[in-house]
Amino acid sequence: MKAEILSIGTELLMGELTDTNGSWIATQLPPLGIQLQWVSIIGDDLDKLTEAFTRGLDRSDVIFTTGGLGPTQDDLTREAVAAALGETPTVQQEVVDNLERYFAGRGIAMPAHNIKQAHLIPSAQFVRNRNGTAPGWWAERDGKIIVCMPGPPGEMQPIWHEEIAPRLRELVDEEVTITRNIKTLGMSEAAIDEEISEFFGHENPYLGIYSKADGIHLRVIARAGDEETAREMIVPVEAAITERLGPYIWGYDSETPEEAAGQALSERGLTLATMESASGGFLANSITDVPGSTGYFKGGVVATTKELLAASGVPSATLRQYSLASAATALAMANAVRETMGADYGIAITGVIGPEPVDDQPVGQVYVAIAGMKQVRQLEFRTPPRRIVIKRRVANTALTELRKLIVEEHEG
Amino acid sequence: MKAEILSIGTELLMGELTDTNGSWIATQLPPLGIQLQWVSIIGDDLDKLTEAFTRGLDRSDVIFTTGGLGPTQDDLTREAVAAALGETPTVQQEVVDNLERYFAGRGIAMPAHNIKQAHLIPSAQFVRNRNGTAPGWWAERDGKIIVCMPGPPGEMQPIWHEEIAPRLRELVDEEVTITRNIKTLGMSEAAIDEEISEFFGHENPYLGIYSKADGIHLRVIARAGDEETAREMIVPVEAAITERLGPYIWGYDSETPEEAAGQALSERGLTLATMESASGGFLANSITDVPGSTGYFKGGVVATTKELLAASGVPSATLRQYSLASAATALAMANAVRETMGADYGIAITGVIGPEPVDDQPVGQVYVAIAGMKQVRQLEFRTPPRRIVIKRRVANTALTELRKLIVEEHEG
Repeated sequence: MKAEILSIGTELLMGELTDTNGSWIATQLPPLGIQLQWVSIIGDDLDKLTEAFTRGLDRSDVIFTTGGLGPTQDDLTREAVAAALGETPTVQQEVVDNLERYFAGRGIAMPAHNIKQAHLIPSAQFVRNRNGTAPGWWAERDGKIIVCMPGPPGEMQPIWHEEIAPRLRELVDEEVTITRNIKTLGMSEAAIDEEISEFFGHENPYLGIYSKADGIHLRVIARAGDEETAREMIVPVEAAITERLGPYIWGYDSETPEEAAGQALSERGLTLATMESASGGFLANSITDVPGSTGYFKGGVVATTKELLAASGVPSATLRQYSLASAATALAMANAVRETMGADYGIAITGVIGPEPVDDQPVGQVYVAIAGMKQVRQLEFRTPPRRIVIKRRVANTALTELRKLIVEEHEG
Repeated sequence: MKAEILSIGTELLMGELTDTNGSWIATQLPPLGIQLQWVSIIGDDLDKLTEAFTRGLDRSDVIFTTGGLGPTQDDLTREAVAAALGETPTVQQEVVDNLERYFAGRGIAMPAHNIKQAHLIPSAQFVRNRNGTAPGWWAERDGKIIVCMPGPPGEMQPIWHEEIAPRLRELVDEEVTITRNIKTLGMSEAAIDEEISEFFGHENPYLGIYSKADGIHLRVIARAGDEETAREMIVPVEAAITERLGPYIWGYDSETPEEAAGQALSERGLTLATMESASGGFLANSITDVPGSTGYFKGGVVATTKELLAASGVPSATLRQYSLASAATALAMANAVRETMGADYGIAITGVIGPEPVDDQPVGQVYVAIAGMKQVRQLEFRTPPRRIVIKRRVANTALTELRKLIVEEHEG
């Protein structure tokens, strides 16, 4: 089954927004046995959109679109599908009722323009959108499929998982592709490459290596007639990687460092508290991105001055003697927050976030301390001097180290 | 001058890499007076690439490509351009010499495959690449232009600035395009659409409306023979938008809510502190994303339990009497953090982040309090029940309201 994606919106052509939906959908297709052939970005222009659908119906079996389903005059996806199929949209009263209920629930009347979202053509059905007013469309005619989804990823991705992927799975009986991501931190790409070199360069299972913000990821991709066979092909590769890179592996598949650390805590009924200077709340915010983090995350402090650190329980003697950006201060912060918040583990991050150096230390110099139940762990390193890079690297490293420390303290 | 972009590479279709070159080039075109009509992502397939060039030569004046200029068998951009133009590539000895020097400088012999990079067709010239082995191509025939650039952004962007943009500037004596973004929060897309409907549907100046995580953005785009005339065309549209949507406008162009609030603070020498329950550090992290925020942001507390709120200065009486998720608790938190951190403004966020309801209140119910110098401001509202949406909406709303409050307190 050959597919193409149309990402719709003039803002994508103006460079105002980078299209991430196209590459997200691209990652979802291989396991379904669907071959992606084209991705196009098209502006909010009825003629161009209609032309794109007409060409897509000619060269592809299925067309996925994102965007252009809103209520405004610029939202033309529905109109273009109708034009390409030569059908006339009509208003569906049931959907008008739903929209009116949606707005009534927010205490406002439905704006007149939203009626657009209740239009449908004979070849299409609505696709339910739990997170917005724009329902999707699933259109089928002459063996071709058009799937229209809203542009916001927070609406599109749930629709994909709940409505689209299950229907596609029923339709496609070709080869399936199974992917396994193995995530490491602390070893260089070249060193990993050498360690497991014999697995590279094969067609199936294929092994890829990718440098990401949270470390080096290894991706094993296997294709087979059914899911089980594909999974079995991955087993020996994953076993060898686990054996040789073990201590550097912190997570799998779509897992994040905060999820891996959170799981290590919650499995053992342990708790965590944080104190951040350089990372400005990035660490606490990452931790609380995980549903259920309330169960193990007690809380955090973000403090940018020595006065506020002192008020948060960091000993004044330490603050007098050492720089705000120092290993000694980081350790005192970790101990202080662990104690004042009554947590099993305390993480502290300090360092130089910029734009100015601090005490002759360059921007990107960071200090992490983790106060554990039996031991402390301290790290200092230097990241590239970009604000968001500093925050992300130091928080990811802190969480990965926390996970390691927990595993060590509770196995030895 | 009508343009299209081809981003070339199978890895882009596998979702392994997100194409950022397309949107980067897109941002470069409007000031040159070039209209981008299409962006396509195409795999490393000679037939598909040739088809794309053939169609592009038919419908566009200029085609920009990135990727497919490397030395491997998968790199087929040159071959496809040659096929689409019906020309035969030949080896250019001068470029072979350059490549051999490049590799000799690294102490290695030129790999045989790299000879591909020395091929040229009669209609094309090489474009110098200071940062890699792949030179670009600039091909011209029958009034159409094809510009081929390498895929790595670190090679492509310098080539663009040094070689491509100057040549385009000479060619194009057409219009320049000026853009003005106006950012609002608190009104629905459809309601705004109705309020200023007479400005939509015009070609020039063009008005677009976009739903973003930080509210609804309006984008005015004007084209004219020179920059000043284009700017003047925007003035009446912006004036009308300002008059009708005034209180809902919080920022312009690429400004973020945290930058707008930060500017309001720093211009007046004011300081801020935060206390977060539901938003888990998202607010502090956003504030500290702004370089120089250390100058006005004192610090923040993230606390998930009443005990920790009490330890952070929230009166026990309030905590005994009211829910953690309540307007009264939010107000007490804002006052407490303003006082304990010695800041001019205190923002507090509480509510129900999920996954479970709290005291019969649904996930997404949030309370914001801002304690100011002369007054307090309180808000309560309900967001969609997704964790990241709750955090982002409540933090953006809090920062937007803070900015409004500061402006009011310091103008009245």
